[in-house]
Amino acid sequence: MIAGIELGGTKTVVALAAADGSVLEECRFPTTLPDETLGFAIDWLKERGTPEAIGIGAFGPIGIVPGRANYGQILATPKPGWEGFSIIGALATAFPEARLALDTDVNAAALAEARHGAAKGLDDVVYITIGTGIGGGILTGGHLVHGALHPEFGHLKVPRFPTDEYPGICSFHKDCLEGLASGPAISQRWGVAAHELSADHPAWDLQAWYLAHGILSLLAIVSPSRVIVGGGVSQAAGLHEKINARLLEIAGGYFPTLQGQPFVVPPHFEQEAGIRGAFLLASL
Amino acid sequence: MIAGIELGGTKTVVALAAADGSVLEECRFPTTLPDETLGFAIDWLKERGTPEAIGIGAFGPIGIVPGRANYGQILATPKPGWEGFSIIGALATAFPEARLALDTDVNAAALAEARHGAAKGLDDVVYITIGTGIGGGILTGGHLVHGALHPEFGHLKVPRFPTDEYPGICSFHKDCLEGLASGPAISQRWGVAAHELSADHPAWDLQAWYLAHGILSLLAIVSPSRVIVGGGVSQAAGLHEKINARLLEIAGGYFPTLQGQPFVVPPHFEQEAGIRGAFLLASL
Repeated sequence: MIAGIELGGTKTVVALAAADGSVLEECRFPTTLPDETLGFAIDWLKERGTPEAIGIGAFGPIGIVPGRANYGQILATPKPGWEGFSIIGALATAFPEARLALDTDVNAAALAEARHGAAKGLDDVVYITIGTGIGGGILTGGHLVHGALHPEFGHLKVPRFPTDEYPGICSFHKDCLEGLASGPAISQRWGVAAHELSADHPAWDLQAWYLAHGILSLLAIVSPSRVIVGGGVSQAAGLHEKINARLLEIAGGYFPTLQGQPFVVPPHFEQEAGIRGAFLLASL
Repeated sequence: MIAGIELGGTKTVVALAAADGSVLEECRFPTTLPDETLGFAIDWLKERGTPEAIGIGAFGPIGIVPGRANYGQILATPKPGWEGFSIIGALATAFPEARLALDTDVNAAALAEARHGAAKGLDDVVYITIGTGIGGGILTGGHLVHGALHPEFGHLKVPRFPTDEYPGICSFHKDCLEGLASGPAISQRWGVAAHELSADHPAWDLQAWYLAHGILSLLAIVSPSRVIVGGGVSQAAGLHEKINARLLEIAGGYFPTLQGQPFVVPPHFEQEAGIRGAFLLASL
């Protein structure tokens, strides 16, 4: 029995994997306090047997490099009760025989899309999600990128859209990418939620500008073959096309990997990328 | 006999490695046309024996992923005669028995600094060089980053220094990082070469601003433990301290990896990083 846990900032998914890597059975519930959240997932799994392996995709910041003192531990976070909590500790106590594999929720999603989804068969893939925040995962040469902590794309600094004077909503940086282009930034700038804006609202030109600049930074740094943009805010009609057009413009003909294909694409799995990625982590 | 070739845009180094990874014997000469340049390096090596392995760190754009059709080949470049030239082809013909290992010159330098230099023992390291252009190499989780092509940091877009109205010198993008902060950009903006500017000239505040923003992008994307900034323009007194100060300011307390250490440091090897890295590539 291979299990997966997707521990998101607002909701958690616990599931069992089918042989083909899809979801056999799952349960979705709100992420509350750590003992309660992990306790619920553990009980759900125990009712179904003893997993031989559990893959976990978790929100960050979190220690994801095995062997480091902070492995499996949630780091500085405004989320009440979570700072210092060890996810690996809780699961190892409940399932001492199970093989545990942890990564960020966005790295898990990147892995699922690269193995079976919108970037199937590619080894150099970036996954970005735009919702309450902006985050991302990276596969390079077939390896997930960790680094000293892990990627935090949302806090990239990008040039401003020429006429945009909105100060930005990030509590650390004001006008980083997340501060200018996350769901809450859109709501605060235009006074309505992203999903209420029509497809021809000027908001989407700004959105495409900021995302294209963030993706250009990714191109210049990790040179992906494809970039997947998902999350609630990405579902606006035509947004991926607008991002591709702006990206080609600002790239100025320099990056050959942009030619001849839609480079920025929507996810294949949408809701399921994280949990499918957790299954894959368990199988690595 | 382990050999290394550092094929730079303006100069080439061919050398033999000592047992400790330092340079036993070397020859430096201008990079001219491809047949002439590789021919000279090959003759120099043949006079000294038959290398069992040759590591090559080369300027780009170049195919560096073994198995791809363009492996070892110089791609679209304004450098006369080099486009389409196969470095691996030339060396394999001359030394059919030798093991050949190729990467970018900046990835080679990153590897040398991470194994034996200013980032000794670290697995997550970025090396940036600032001279005629701006380029860089990345080690993440102990692996060199290739991607679909390879990193091209120089073409990052960064927010402008508030009062800077210089249009930028990059022929593709005008005001990308290289367009605003390379040696030629400094010369054109201020009317004098970088090495003629005094340490308290305002040029260095702009330089620190642009480099700090580029490094913040690297932090948000690959999360290095340390960043090495080298190349001719980096040698200005106090520049690394200025970059660190600006980086801490714009990071807004968000990135824990910045705390408690000088994060941006000068290279240990300066002139020798590339060729030492080429030796390491040959030994991988």
